[in-house]
Amino acid sequence: MAANRQLKLGAFMRPVSIHTGAWRYPGARRDANFSLEALTEYIRKLEAAKFDAFFMADHLAVLNMPIEALRRSHTVTSFEPFTLLSALAMVTSHIGLVATASTTFEQPFNLARRFASLDHISSGRAGWNIVTTSNPDAALNFGLDEHVSHADRYARAREFYDVVTGLWDSFADDAFIRDVESGIYFDPDRMRPLNHKGPHYSVRGPLHIARPVQGWPVIVQAGASEPGRQLAAETAEVVFVAPNTLDDGRRFYADVKGRLAALGRERDHLKILPGAFVVVGDTVEEARAIRARLDSLVHAESAIASLSIALGHDVSGYDPDGYLPDIPDTEHSKSSRERALAIAEREKLTIRQLAQRLGGYAGLAIVGSPQSIADDMQEWLETEGSDGFNLMFPYLPGGLDAFVGKVVPELQRRGIFRTEYEGTTLRENLGLPRPGNRFFPD
Amino acid sequence: MAANRQLKLGAFMRPVSIHTGAWRYPGARRDANFSLEALTEYIRKLEAAKFDAFFMADHLAVLNMPIEALRRSHTVTSFEPFTLLSALAMVTSHIGLVATASTTFEQPFNLARRFASLDHISSGRAGWNIVTTSNPDAALNFGLDEHVSHADRYARAREFYDVVTGLWDSFADDAFIRDVESGIYFDPDRMRPLNHKGPHYSVRGPLHIARPVQGWPVIVQAGASEPGRQLAAETAEVVFVAPNTLDDGRRFYADVKGRLAALGRERDHLKILPGAFVVVGDTVEEARAIRARLDSLVHAESAIASLSIALGHDVSGYDPDGYLPDIPDTEHSKSSRERALAIAEREKLTIRQLAQRLGGYAGLAIVGSPQSIADDMQEWLETEGSDGFNLMFPYLPGGLDAFVGKVVPELQRRGIFRTEYEGTTLRENLGLPRPGNRFFPD
Ligand SMILES: Cc1cc2nc3c(=O)[nH]c(=O)nc-3n(C[C@H](O)[C@H](O)[C@H](O)COP(=O)(O)O)c2cc1C
Ligand SMILES: Cc1cc2nc3c(=O)[nH]c(=O)nc-3n(C[C@H](O)[C@H](O)[C@H](O)COP(=O)(O)O)c2cc1C
Repeated sequence: MAANRQLKLGAFMRPVSIHTGAWRYPGARRDANFSLEALTEYIRKLEAAKFDAFFMADHLAVLNMPIEALRRSHTVTSFEPFTLLSALAMVTSHIGLVATASTTFEQPFNLARRFASLDHISSGRAGWNIVTTSNPDAALNFGLDEHVSHADRYARAREFYDVVTGLWDSFADDAFIRDVESGIYFDPDRMRPLNHKGPHYSVRGPLHIARPVQGWPVIVQAGASEPGRQLAAETAEVVFVAPNTLDDGRRFYADVKGRLAALGRERDHLKILPGAFVVVGDTVEEARAIRARLDSLVHAESAIASLSIALGHDVSGYDPDGYLPDIPDTEHSKSSRERALAIAEREKLTIRQLAQRLGGYAGLAIVGSPQSIADDMQEWLETEGSDGFNLMFPYLPGGLDAFVGKVVPELQRRGIFRTEYEGTTLRENLGLPRPGNRFFPD
Repeated sequence: MAANRQLKLGAFMRPVSIHTGAWRYPGARRDANFSLEALTEYIRKLEAAKFDAFFMADHLAVLNMPIEALRRSHTVTSFEPFTLLSALAMVTSHIGLVATASTTFEQPFNLARRFASLDHISSGRAGWNIVTTSNPDAALNFGLDEHVSHADRYARAREFYDVVTGLWDSFADDAFIRDVESGIYFDPDRMRPLNHKGPHYSVRGPLHIARPVQGWPVIVQAGASEPGRQLAAETAEVVFVAPNTLDDGRRFYADVKGRLAALGRERDHLKILPGAFVVVGDTVEEARAIRARLDSLVHAESAIASLSIALGHDVSGYDPDGYLPDIPDTEHSKSSRERALAIAEREKLTIRQLAQRLGGYAGLAIVGSPQSIADDMQEWLETEGSDGFNLMFPYLPGGLDAFVGKVVPELQRRGIFRTEYEGTTLRENLGLPRPGNRFFPD
């Protein structure tokens, strides 16, 4: 709560936007999933606005939605994160490049190496969003008949992290001598095999790549369950979270930050960034109208089918342009039911509008004018709701242009967002220390 | 042997050169392993010279050499191929980008996706050098106690190839409709899961990425054993080979091309490119002097130790500046012994020079003036020794500059190398057909 605390801002990028209807919005680049040109333009704008990081989500199967929704969704296919972020490293110089990668369906040796390489290619801008992959369909693409259990995924994730960070420490920073006279290229005493043998992984090492520029790429985590939070407290330097309200956010913030002292970690060395869908208008009313228009592009029938599932009650027989009648309580999906009912009541949405809202983007949204959005963000920052945000733009490029053109200057004017990058690496910009090398502590 | 046959040229790139002494050569960039700037310069020069492809070798462990040799070698560490080639795609527009990737230590789903993404990022310039990984140390980095057997590696490779190419066919080219009016983004009838269940892999699919621009990235193979050649004949479109002489090369060429008809493949749809170390001087003498100087930078003691192993006879007791005495025949390593003796005799090398020659770069070399090198290459092309070469430069940037500045114009003058790229994809430039989609044959 010091006066000089500033927001950290990431951009959670789906090439066309996370909103299901976005590709139909006027001016949208419908083919951005495979347009490097579009993504180059977006990341350059984000860098000009001094964003901390460009964040690529990742999934290891076609998303598991009903086919009626899937065929209307632009999220079915895009670039793979390592290849994309390596390419984007070449058109940027300061913004962080965070790749999502799974501890359940990759080999730690390969992953450690790829992240180290991305960190070298980007001169120290790589981050690793550790996920355990919740989509059960992924398992079928990797030789399994059913998904690895939640507990097992997290046990593997913890060990996987130890292996990967250990492999990054394979070489001391001064291992490479390259002395022409003596003919010695590197000092083998400054290289160390890991010799890891654990319950899930056995990896000798060393990793055959110089230590990453940042020591280790920045560790990011997004698990929400108890083991997810504990993994975050033990390992993460940035945590993504999906709270519904500021109160939710504060509880999560207090919980995860509260675990750090016992682990010997400093509170400031873990940044909590809620995902937020941000819709900018010149006025609050205009922003709401933009959102309503976007939601209206979501296919109503399949959205109403999904709403019935969320409510645990078939609403397809009601007039879609009327309001929800009293819905009987059921044992099914209590939290999604309550959330839906709360939104319908708060915003006075018809059945169709509610379905399209939930089918478009259902998570935390900040919808308003540059002033009101800056007010909201400032409140999150100053009341320990978050250390910043991982932003999702409603449609591209328009929604991104509006945020960087109108909201960022307002945040900067208030002194709660940087006007220049503090450093050149992602760690420097996030204010995170460079980890020491476990084998070469000097 | 048609008059208009032209050489295909790849560059087999180690950032500092494949030659062990190269980093000590005057003007060498000793830190090129992690210099994107250097690699950007090299690939741009290769593209200006109309090379077909930039080829990245890959290994999954520190190279298994004695530590005395290893610490003198610049080959211990560099970028990972996918991240590097994706970055280099951004600074080039026509040259092919061939990544080596192992079928023994990767998951087919992940690999298929990464190659497809590289092909999209580069607008159709990706190639996959299929290797089974011969370095036994790699196994220890992937949870195994010992290496997978040679036969098993090739059985897996064959099935792995079926899975990967099948995954690339997941979407028809016209699957993505993106019709704003109807709200249909893609047609699920034009997407197909693979449902592969084989002895080594079980992969459902579909791969969640649009079909690669080239249909499939170009398939490259470098196995030399009988199963390696058969895999090449069945699957490869480019074959790397390491013959010692033109006669060797012709035998390999006849063997592998001879297998194609029975497999229903056209002879021209598989290109054979021997690896060749190419040293250019203004005269043949100058080229030989450059090579001798380069060899003299190889550490003599560790080279002589290696020579003893190659000969199956300890030569460390002899005067290194004298010639080899008669070496008794042994049962060990017959071929490496004969090769060493043949080189020593042909070039009248002392023990030290022979050791340094073998320790520097021991494979096929083309050393001479622009004229003599063009003569040699033309002979290989015209006598069915090869369809071109995969070139290694002795030191960088000088050795590369000499080749593109002096030899390429000579090859072009003779009409045996292109002066403009034929197309924009690697397939188009290599004259290879775009593979049909097994699920959507229209
Ligand atoms: C902002 C945000 C981004 C996420 N991105 C991904 C992703 O790209 N890939 C993925 O598999 N899971 C992603 N997740 C899901 C989390 O990794 C995690 O599985 C989920 O929050 C449920 O938590 P749990 O696994 O601890 O139960 C994301 C979650 C959040 C909140
Ligand atoms: C020009 C050339 C390049 C090669 N590059 C690699 C490489 O990058 N990585 C690798 O593991 N093996 C590489 N190899 C080795 C081959 O894949 C293969 O293992 C070797 O030729 C022995 O053949 P075999 O495996 O059929 O016995 C290369 C071979 C040649 C001739």
